[in-house]
Formats: sequence, structure tokens, C-alpha cells
Amino acid sequence: MIEEKKITDIAEELNLLLEEDKEKAIKDYFCSLKLSDQIYLIDHLPKEKKIRIFSLLTIDEKAELIPEVDEYSMEVIIRSLDADTLSKIADSLEIDEAVDLIGEVREHRRDTVLNKAKRAEHIRALLRFGPDTAAGIMTLDFLSLNGEDTVKTAQEKLRKIREQEEFKYIYIIDDYGKLSGYVTPWAILTSNSEKILRDLSKPIYSVPADLDQEEVIPIVTDYDLLQVPVVDEFGKLIGVITVDDVLDVMEEEATEDIQYMGGLRNIESAFFPPRRSFASRIPWLYIKLLSALLAALVVGYFEDVIQAFIGAAIFMPVVAAMGGSAGTQTLSIIVRAIALGEVRYQDVKGILWKEIIVGFYTGLAIGLGTSLIALIWKGNPMFGLVVGLALILNHLAAALFGVLLPVIMDKMDIDPALTSSLFLTTITDVFGFFALLALTKMILT
Amino acid sequence: MIEEKKITDIAEELNLLLEEDKEKAIKDYFCSLKLSDQIYLIDHLPKEKKIRIFSLLTIDEKAELIPEVDEYSMEVIIRSLDADTLSKIADSLEIDEAVDLIGEVREHRRDTVLNKAKRAEHIRALLRFGPDTAAGIMTLDFLSLNGEDTVKTAQEKLRKIREQEEFKYIYIIDDYGKLSGYVTPWAILTSNSEKILRDLSKPIYSVPADLDQEEVIPIVTDYDLLQVPVVDEFGKLIGVITVDDVLDVMEEEATEDIQYMGGLRNIESAFFPPRRSFASRIPWLYIKLLSALLAALVVGYFEDVIQAFIGAAIFMPVVAAMGGSAGTQTLSIIVRAIALGEVRYQDVKGILWKEIIVGFYTGLAIGLGTSLIALIWKGNPMFGLVVGLALILNHLAAALFGVLLPVIMDKMDIDPALTSSLFLTTITDVFGFFALLALTKMILT
Repeated sequence: MIEEKKITDIAEELNLLLEEDKEKAIKDYFCSLKLSDQIYLIDHLPKEKKIRIFSLLTIDEKAELIPEVDEYSMEVIIRSLDADTLSKIADSLEIDEAVDLIGEVREHRRDTVLNKAKRAEHIRALLRFGPDTAAGIMTLDFLSLNGEDTVKTAQEKLRKIREQEEFKYIYIIDDYGKLSGYVTPWAILTSNSEKILRDLSKPIYSVPADLDQEEVIPIVTDYDLLQVPVVDEFGKLIGVITVDDVLDVMEEEATEDIQYMGGLRNIESAFFPPRRSFASRIPWLYIKLLSALLAALVVGYFEDVIQAFIGAAIFMPVVAAMGGSAGTQTLSIIVRAIALGEVRYQDVKGILWKEIIVGFYTGLAIGLGTSLIALIWKGNPMFGLVVGLALILNHLAAALFGVLLPVIMDKMDIDPALTSSLFLTTITDVFGFFALLALTKMILT
Repeated sequence: MIEEKKITDIAEELNLLLEEDKEKAIKDYFCSLKLSDQIYLIDHLPKEKKIRIFSLLTIDEKAELIPEVDEYSMEVIIRSLDADTLSKIADSLEIDEAVDLIGEVREHRRDTVLNKAKRAEHIRALLRFGPDTAAGIMTLDFLSLNGEDTVKTAQEKLRKIREQEEFKYIYIIDDYGKLSGYVTPWAILTSNSEKILRDLSKPIYSVPADLDQEEVIPIVTDYDLLQVPVVDEFGKLIGVITVDDVLDVMEEEATEDIQYMGGLRNIESAFFPPRRSFASRIPWLYIKLLSALLAALVVGYFEDVIQAFIGAAIFMPVVAAMGGSAGTQTLSIIVRAIALGEVRYQDVKGILWKEIIVGFYTGLAIGLGTSLIALIWKGNPMFGLVVGLALILNHLAAALFGVLLPVIMDKMDIDPALTSSLFLTTITDVFGFFALLALTKMILT
């Protein structure tokens, strides 16, 4: 969290202008702000004000801002714009940003917008790859030279390109556009001018256009690359993924893992309006309710045990909380290790065995402590034993399912983070209550 | 998880050789493997075998491998090596890797090792910054030129440096070593040779040496930088952080957030030995036990209510599970938004208000469903009402604490991820049981 007084003053001033609805004053004030403040304001203002401000901007101003605002704001704004404006915005965006924009337009309007846009065919071709693929995150802004060029020719060609953009890599292609390697400006700068590029060229990793964006991350981190070229099925260079795109993907995937494990099924921004948050959370809460009723059924089944021995009801929260805690600890280690590719299938047996050992000893340690407390509280040594045993069993279940659930999910090609602690805690609740109440029944009644 | 059959065969073969303890065969086989397989094997073998293999390698082979293995393996291996070997390894490492290595040597041996090392003073100076600071993750491998040099001179100087390394940025410093900006090889390549570098130089963001590594991330992502120069208190350039270091930091911080929220206090690798995992988890489980006893106390206080109305005990797990789920959903959104810097203090009021609205409506929806189930199950409309009301109240508490806990932690400069769902669920457990049992007492008995 960054402490910033200024943005509150800016927001206040803008809100005043919006209330007075002075078009020109709003526009002038907004356009005088720096981009990061503009983005912040659009992201944080209510829906109507987002739309109002956006309606006052020119096409170029819209095009500058729209790729930067958050997903929800983008959706709201796109819905408020007509097809004509959208196609004009698409025309003034870089091609990869245009693809993202058109991708956000609802499907029934998409063709109308595309038909007015200049690069409709190109956009359509790129849209066919999903937004979460290598092609979906690549940029088309790269430089390639023919491998037969000499360093001298290359230097001349480079001098002619008077773009602001500075290329870190120059890709070497053959006569058919097939990627064969890369050189850096540095290499061209420091090499003998008679050499040909093919001889300077170094091999480079490339990825297929339809690769899942998540799988690009280890390629970049393991090989410390700044760019990964993307090739089509014929090996032709069609774009590059730069490391800042990879940083964005990494941020996105970490958010996904954290929110999935927190029991959300659709990634949420903190600034979603209440209605949207409600709609996204309630289905999952109902599923959780159904599974929680399982735990209630177990308790209901042992109604007579509780009535005969009320202490069991008192220690129910302890058994549930401890099993949930131990399971969640294991789960968060395993989910993360799978996401980072540290755990492979051949490791599962060893890890499972290790977690069961840890589960047994933590269960023993916590079980001993709790049985002592139960003994003092209820004055019944046998009840202390029951609570302790239930805790050991629940820790073992927590270890078992904490490892197996995410591994099985991964095997079924479901994101292991979706296992989530909430799902696991249903299991530890059911198992823990059953162990506690069944043992109480067997030993105490 | 990457499906890879080969590595199991490799591991098996190596294990066979290790069992037969054929020194030369082990070494030859291990050294014939590619680096990524070597790393994988060292990380996954038991302690004694890690040490055994390492003992057979030459200093250079050790130096190549040691910066890449995981933290636990590094610790084990360092402990197995004598001061002489360690100092020789440090000598053949890049200076930043040498600093990391010496940083891992236990303090009572550190001076002995350093005194034998060649760059002892330099390493000591860098060690003074913690490993989690900008200086701790920077590399010393950068290129700087004086701003008064001409493009021609620069080109000549660059041609003379026949290093393999390819520099993406050339830093421009003044006569006192103070950083003033940067140029790229590209700019030097495409500029008139009479120009002086100062005129080509572009301004650049730099960070102070003692900045927390986490705060480097937004600088790199917001400005799409590939390198961030690090300066000392006089503005003198002392190193650069490259984007692959930032990727590592990001990965580390995401792991930290996920494991912290999962209820771990010390970051764990899935391959920690059981003893170490036990030691790292048990203190926190004991704290959790103490807080779970609070929930047990609440239940104990209402013992008579449960005895009079056993249905209350049956719906305890439901109220606890739903409050915990709703709270964890809110928590994971807020913790992540704070980590990404999306939420600032002025936003807290709005977000709190929003979450309370969402909490009320989800509580209402779940409460209605549950009260219906309670009505059917227990045939008592008043009890259905009690369960429904308890659920609404618990969802409100979940929303309130799901927002406030991480915000308060952040304000106190504690990582908000340490709030963790486990901590929050204690609150929702206590609050939920209290609401359910107190309402049962008031309305039903």
C-alpha cells in the first residue's frame, strides 16, 4: 500500500467537477493528470463516472488509456462505446492491444466492430488463439533480418529504421521466414563488418503459438531470457513474448493461485461492484454449504453420543480447527511446489510418506497437549485419550489429503490451487468429527 | 508437473552407483548429466548422498552447481565443506554469488572462510546489506561509460571488451562515478559518431541499495524495465538488478504469500526432511490450538443450551464452515490487492462497505437455504430462523475482519499474508458459535 495524499485531493476535485457536470473542465482537468493517476481514477470511480469521463476523451486519448485500466473498467467502458468508436480505437492501437480490445467486445457485436476496423483479417487470425496462450500475450513488434545479410548491411538497415523503439534482439530468419537464431545489436556493433549474420547468429528457444501462457514462465526463468520468439506450425516467426509480458503472466497466475486457494472460482478485483462479487461467490458458497452439511450429518448421526457426553461437543471445534490447520499447511506447500514444477510424479510417494510422518508427530504433539487440557477441564482421563487419538487420526487424514488432492487434480489437468483449503477442510471436518464422536461412543458410553 | 520418465532412470542408475560406492563411476556419470538434471538430483537426494556426490566434484564443478541448488541442499552442503574449500569456491564464483554463498555460511565460521577468500573486503561490504535488499539481489556485472565520451570512442571501447557477456544497457556516469542516465548499444550503433554520450543519454530510475527487494517489483513492472541500477547514498552506481532477478523475487514473494496464508510461518520446501518440517510447523499449530480453545470455551459456556437443544450442536459445523469460507474469500482478495499495491488507505472505507454489503447478501442467501434445511430436518421454524440469523451475522463478521485484519497488519508493517485464513477462521468460529448458541438460548430455551 502506497501512502499518497495527493490522489485523494485529485479525486475530490474531479468529483466536484463531475457533480457540476462541466464537460470542458472535467476533460481539461483529467487530461492534465499523469497517466498513472488517470488509470487509478478510472479504476476506482463508480461505473457511471468511468463512462462519463471516457465519453469526453478523443479517440487517441481513449486508445492510450483503455489497455491500462482494470478488467472490470474495460468491460464497462467497452459496453458503453458504439461499434464505430471501438473500431477507431482498435485502429490506433498496437495490433496486440487491438486484439485484446476486440477480444473483450461481446461476441454478438464483435463482427460489427471488426468489419469497420482496418486490420480486421489480421486481428481475426490472432483472435483465434486464446488470450491465455503464447500467441495471446505476444507482441508483433520485433525486428528480423535475413541470415545472409552482412554486418555492414545490417548496420545500414538498422540506421535507417528511425523508430523510437529499441530492439534488444534481432531475429535471424531464412528466405522462407523460418526462425533460425538471433543476434544482438551489441554483436552487430562489435563485429567485423564483412561477416554475415548467420555466422554471428546464436540458437534460441522458441515456443509454439498455442502453448499455455503459464508454461512460458519456466522457459524464461530457467534460461534467463528477455524475449521468447513465438512460431507457427511451420516454424515461421510470428511474434515475441517479452519478459514484461511474462512478469504480468506471473502476477496473474500468482493472483489466481492465491484466490483459488482462498475459495474463489472467478478471479476478483477488490473493486468489483457488490452485485458482481455476490454473483461470483455465491455458487461456490452453496457448494461449500452442501459439503458442510456432510459434517452436520456426521454430528447428527452421533446425537445420542453428544447428549450422553457433552464434552465431545466442546472439543469438536478443536479437532476441526487443528485438522484444518495441518491440512492447509501441507496443501499450500504442495500446490506451490506443483505450480513451480518442483514436484514431479516420481516424488509423490516420498512426499506423501514424509507428510504422513510429520502429520503423525504434529498430531501426537497437539493430541498430547489437548488431551491434557481435556483431562483437566473434564476430569476424565479416558476422554483426554479420546480427544488425543481423534487429533492424531485427523492430522494423518490432513497429511494424506493435503498431498493427494492437489496431485490428483493436477493429474486430471485441473489447477491444483482449485483444491483450496475450503475443500480440504470439509474432509478434515467430516473425518475429525467422525473420529472424535465414534471414539467417544466406543470408549465412553 | 512435468512428466519426465528419463529422470527416474537417471536417479536409479546413480543410486546403484552410490550403493556400490564406486567413486570414479559416480563422478563420471554425474558430470555427464546436463545441469538441470544435476540440480534436480542434488535437490531430491537424501542428505548423505547430496554430500557424497558433492565431495567428488572439483572446485569449478562445485562452483557451477552450488548457486543453483535449493536452499536446504545448499545449507547441508555448505555445512559439509571445510573453510578452505568454501573460500576456493567463493573465489571462482561471480561476486554476487560469492556474497550469497558466504551469507549462507554460519556466522561462527564466516570469518575463517572470508579470511582465506580473495575478495574478502568486497564481499564483506556487500554482506552488510541483507539478502532481501536491492543490494542483496543486484549483480556487479554492468558496463558504464563516461558521459563526455563520444560515440566513436564508445564504439572503440566496446569493441575492445571481448567478453561473452552482452550488455543491454550502458550506464552513463559523471567524473565522480555518479549515475546520470543510460544509453543502449542500439543507440550507439545508430548514432552519429561525433556525438557525445551525455547527449544520447536517457534518464533512468535507480533504487537505493537498502530498498526492500519486494519494492523493486512494481518499479520494474510499471515501467517495463529490463534492469534497475542500484546506487549508494551518494548516487554512485554500485550494481544493477536484472529482470531475471526480479522474476526470482516475484516467485519468492508469491510463495511466501501462498504459504503464509496457508498457515506456515517459515517458508518450506516440499523436500524438507520431516524433522525440519515438524519444527517449523509445530509452534504455529500450538498457537492455533490455543485460539481454537477459545471457540471450545464458547461452546462450553453454552453447554446447557446444547443439552436442551441438540440441533444447535449439529449446525455448529455449518455456521463455522460458512463463516470461514466467506471470510477466506474476502481475505484472499484483500491480501493480494495490498501486495500488488492496488489498494491504498483511502480505498479501505469503500472496500469495507462493499464487503459488508456482499457479506450481508451472501449471508442472507446461505442463511435462507440453511434455515430451510434446519426447518425440514428439525421441524422447528424458530430454529430455522436462529440458524439463518447466525449465518448472516457470521458472514458480516467475516467481511469485517476479512478486510480489517490484513489492512491493520499492513499498517503495522507486518506482511498481511501472515493474517492467514487460519487466524481469521478462529474469529469466525468464535463469533459464529456465539451467535448460534446465544440466539438458540434467547429464542428457543
